[in-house]
Amino acid sequence: MITVRTIAELRTAVRRLRQEAEQQSDRAEVGFVPTMGYLHEGHASLMRQAKEQCAVTVLSIFVNPIQFGPNEDLAQYPRDEERDLKLAASLGIDIVFIPSPEEMYPQPTKTTIHVREVTEPLCGASRPGHFDGVTTVVAKLFHIVKPDRAYFGMKDAQQVAVIQQMVDDLNFDVAIVPCPIVREADGLALSSRNVYLSGEEREQALGLSRSLRMAEEWLREEPGLTAEEVKSRIRQVIGQAPLADIDYVDILTFPALQALPSDEPVGHAGSDVLIALAVRFGRTRLIDNRLFSRQGGRLCSVK
Amino acid sequence: MITVRTIAELRTAVRRLRQEAEQQSDRAEVGFVPTMGYLHEGHASLMRQAKEQCAVTVLSIFVNPIQFGPNEDLAQYPRDEERDLKLAASLGIDIVFIPSPEEMYPQPTKTTIHVREVTEPLCGASRPGHFDGVTTVVAKLFHIVKPDRAYFGMKDAQQVAVIQQMVDDLNFDVAIVPCPIVREADGLALSSRNVYLSGEEREQALGLSRSLRMAEEWLREEPGLTAEEVKSRIRQVIGQAPLADIDYVDILTFPALQALPSDEPVGHAGSDVLIALAVRFGRTRLIDNRLFSRQGGRLCSVK
Repeated sequence: MITVRTIAELRTAVRRLRQEAEQQSDRAEVGFVPTMGYLHEGHASLMRQAKEQCAVTVLSIFVNPIQFGPNEDLAQYPRDEERDLKLAASLGIDIVFIPSPEEMYPQPTKTTIHVREVTEPLCGASRPGHFDGVTTVVAKLFHIVKPDRAYFGMKDAQQVAVIQQMVDDLNFDVAIVPCPIVREADGLALSSRNVYLSGEEREQALGLSRSLRMAEEWLREEPGLTAEEVKSRIRQVIGQAPLADIDYVDILTFPALQALPSDEPVGHAGSDVLIALAVRFGRTRLIDNRLFSRQGGRLCSVK
Repeated sequence: MITVRTIAELRTAVRRLRQEAEQQSDRAEVGFVPTMGYLHEGHASLMRQAKEQCAVTVLSIFVNPIQFGPNEDLAQYPRDEERDLKLAASLGIDIVFIPSPEEMYPQPTKTTIHVREVTEPLCGASRPGHFDGVTTVVAKLFHIVKPDRAYFGMKDAQQVAVIQQMVDDLNFDVAIVPCPIVREADGLALSSRNVYLSGEEREQALGLSRSLRMAEEWLREEPGLTAEEVKSRIRQVIGQAPLADIDYVDILTFPALQALPSDEPVGHAGSDVLIALAVRFGRTRLIDNRLFSRQGGRLCSVK
């Protein structure tokens, strides 16, 4: 595994491995997994899928300052480079790119990429400027790594929708590969931020995944439920945890992320449907979601 | 010469020619000249330089709707595809890309690239949103063509500064090659929009280049002149033409495009200096500029 910290070294390493791979095969693709490090089994699933599909795999670890708001957890964001590198090596990643903030932003960026509409609900409403920071750094990383395929976890479903929109609008020649949410045995969606949770908070945070499983059941048994009714029931389930402070519970089309008519049955939606949650426990903000897709005329949870 | 109208065909053509060129040489570069067509000798100079430096040359002709304001000349922008193709072929261009607006924007773009600061003075102040349209389409074209070098005329000096800023900030792996302004024998800077001018307007439009030549002389002979004094003299020269309606006359650092202190001698500026003009004649808006660079302690006009 090659570990590099500068853009120039990264470009050279990717070019060399791509050339070597092209000598083996006509379809030698570069697969890219951009992360903020403190890797968990969710990231591992992205890396495994990249390894399966691509001749060359690149992992980036960069806690991107411009996607954090002024009152967010940039300084406290958990880091463990040594453990991350061990995990990447054990999965057979070819190149790890760990740039410093100065390498990525030698000057404060004057250039920003903004995506309208899909950035506006959900985390976009709670975290102003967050997605501009995400799209801008992802564009930078795409220009640096030049991947053929890039892997993103569906836990950040809105991020997947926003990046796909950017890729389509700006004609990036990159296939975006969304990968399923990975959960603990008890249902908690994996997140680097889970490490912040106290034992009690972690216990109560199970309400997020539980409410989503229940929503799946409700929609199967009562397809006539409106978005308002489902949201209200989810709020009740999560609200049973005294430490839970709900940021949002929303039900939107996917990937356009448009509101469902509040009085129409969710089961009648003409497209895929995303139920998405954000809940604070103390200073820790957790998100989770479930995607539903129409199969045989019925709205079913997507694995 | 290959002429293509779809993104898919363009990608295939570039990939094939690049591979062929790579079999001939290790440093087979793709050179790209993005234009809005109605080509003149200024565009020809860009194409010639691309031909000189690159193994594969791509010209794009696309009148980009999103860089025109609602009251600008999008519908009237001059076009002559047949003549453009003849010129490109005569210069040995390998691939011409002429997409339709629907090919470039199958949906209205939700994604915009915005560059702060360098977009704010000059044409950015007169044409709100113009540079967002430019950077967004240039990013799209860069993602489609994947050039190693891209050629831009210095007549649009602010455009060069804006695109270089975007390329630096977003880590595009493209060298931006600015090329000198090409002028008629009488000094008029070449522009596709010159075709709009009546005989009388064209005659009076010579005040732009004349005032810039005079400014060069003033600065040589009186290096203590302040920006305010030079601007005021230029306004006087241009204002002698009764049909001239001055949009702006400005003196800024280049490429940062920051104002010079109004009471400091222009000759004392710590960086390159751009004198830039925009003047309307009837419904036609012309721009011109002159770049000065410090040589041997003195500010000299850049060829």
